[in-house]
Amino acid sequence: MADPTEERELLQRARRVRRLLRVKPGSVDLAGTDPRSTPGLPPARPADADPKSWSRAEVARIGTRIAAGQERLFASAAVGADRRRALLILQATDCGGKDGTVKSVVGTMNPLGVHIKAFGPPTAEELAQHFLWRIDRALPGAGYVGVFNRSHYEDVLVVRVHSLVPRKIWQARYDQINRFEQDLASDGLSMIKVMLHVSYAEQRERLLARLDDPTKRWKFNPGDLDDRDRWDDYQEAYADALNRCNSKAAPWYVVPADRKWYRNWAVANVLLAHLEEMNLTYPDVALDIPALRARLASGEQEVNKR
Amino acid sequence: MADPTEERELLQRARRVRRLLRVKPGSVDLAGTDPRSTPGLPPARPADADPKSWSRAEVARIGTRIAAGQERLFASAAVGADRRRALLILQATDCGGKDGTVKSVVGTMNPLGVHIKAFGPPTAEELAQHFLWRIDRALPGAGYVGVFNRSHYEDVLVVRVHSLVPRKIWQARYDQINRFEQDLASDGLSMIKVMLHVSYAEQRERLLARLDDPTKRWKFNPGDLDDRDRWDDYQEAYADALNRCNSKAAPWYVVPADRKWYRNWAVANVLLAHLEEMNLTYPDVALDIPALRARLASGEQEVNKR
Repeated sequence: MADPTEERELLQRARRVRRLLRVKPGSVDLAGTDPRSTPGLPPARPADADPKSWSRAEVARIGTRIAAGQERLFASAAVGADRRRALLILQATDCGGKDGTVKSVVGTMNPLGVHIKAFGPPTAEELAQHFLWRIDRALPGAGYVGVFNRSHYEDVLVVRVHSLVPRKIWQARYDQINRFEQDLASDGLSMIKVMLHVSYAEQRERLLARLDDPTKRWKFNPGDLDDRDRWDDYQEAYADALNRCNSKAAPWYVVPADRKWYRNWAVANVLLAHLEEMNLTYPDVALDIPALRARLASGEQEVNKR
Repeated sequence: MADPTEERELLQRARRVRRLLRVKPGSVDLAGTDPRSTPGLPPARPADADPKSWSRAEVARIGTRIAAGQERLFASAAVGADRRRALLILQATDCGGKDGTVKSVVGTMNPLGVHIKAFGPPTAEELAQHFLWRIDRALPGAGYVGVFNRSHYEDVLVVRVHSLVPRKIWQARYDQINRFEQDLASDGLSMIKVMLHVSYAEQRERLLARLDDPTKRWKFNPGDLDDRDRWDDYQEAYADALNRCNSKAAPWYVVPADRKWYRNWAVANVLLAHLEEMNLTYPDVALDIPALRARLASGEQEVNKR
């Protein structure tokens, strides 16, 4: 990407998509957000273009910039004293597309600098600790981009919907999460929280597709249907989590996710906008370059070495 | 890739490359292996094609198959009782191309199923334990493809060359490594050990390139020149490691790595050949599909749900 105009447009669009998808404080309206909508899509997109291949090419283009930011972040921690790191948190109901988003968007980055963690039901060891204990242990270190497939938000979602702990306990967690996230932000962690928003009808289609396709059947968990029966309860729990834990330090985004190609494109844009905002640069390295060059030249005589 | 002939050829070539690069027991000859050679390269490759773009396209093609194997491996562990997992170990002298190989080859896989670990100098906590302790803790679980950037072999390489422990200690490690790897193999871990073989001259070029390019300078570690001074000692230590710890359960490959495009292509082929040999299939899932379909249909009336 050598064209500066093209690059500027890419960034402007990323910022615009981020602004559009950002949850405004106290105003979450999931029922009023159409999961099939496509906020921020450029009008210049060729009308007859296949949206899937258009999105794939765009994600690759955006991904090149994401990877460039990621390398600067990694380099800054590797040699400097830069403690910064990023964390992309993905939350969604079943079939919301968390795995697909990881494959598409996270796949654009250098695997060496990515720290992925998928959270399942807590183990006995984890249950014996505070709910943030296992989260803490999975955080990315300086220089890394962390990716959480599910997160501590499960502790105010599934836990609340299925009453796994008393109401008083989960009610207290919103404030605990806010303090936790605030502390991390002030220590250099840049958090990007994304809810992939699919419709009840689309979830049905995707569950059926898993049943129909032998190569997808392993993803089908009959327990997902129990969660589906509690759809409204989950939407309410999501709305509360998004309203009560939405800060400048750790903002929420709602990404309409019925169209996978839009979902991937949108998440890539949000991630890029965040990385760009971090103003990442390559670190200055204090090296005596002439001396090092001379030392390298001196070894050249040993021609018999392979 | 729908064409079965094309697919068969791809696999045959992968097996051939693997056979050519496989270290034959007791016969390691690093000095006799040209780091600029390109074993197994198809003669049909267009002579005027740019090798870099040819390689990139081929790695993408091979990567599609690698990712397909990876998903079957992941699925088998997710629903079945399949304990199998794979582990790609990358070893090289400085500038050997470990990071580039991860970016190119490991980047073809779904990040969710990859477990990457880069080993640096051991921490105080790690030094207080047996040298395999930190390795054990970083192994991939069932269903995952692990990637080690450096490994327990450092404990018979840098440790030996710089006499970080007495000779008697590192001498005993070859047998310990063999037992360790044998135990893991019998527990379902498929290991692929790759040494990226660069020449003394090529290392010099790459070190100079790091000095010249401000975006690469952060990778330059003056300590690498001390290691470069011990080039012959390292080659000898590598040869011993490759000779003494080369088993059917955990084979070594020497990949000529002066040409990055060949290196990526070769490692992709070796990895693919290993995954294919595992005969990975999607697991059978015991689901009452008609009942699940009926239950999904019954929810359809709730049209007011998003």
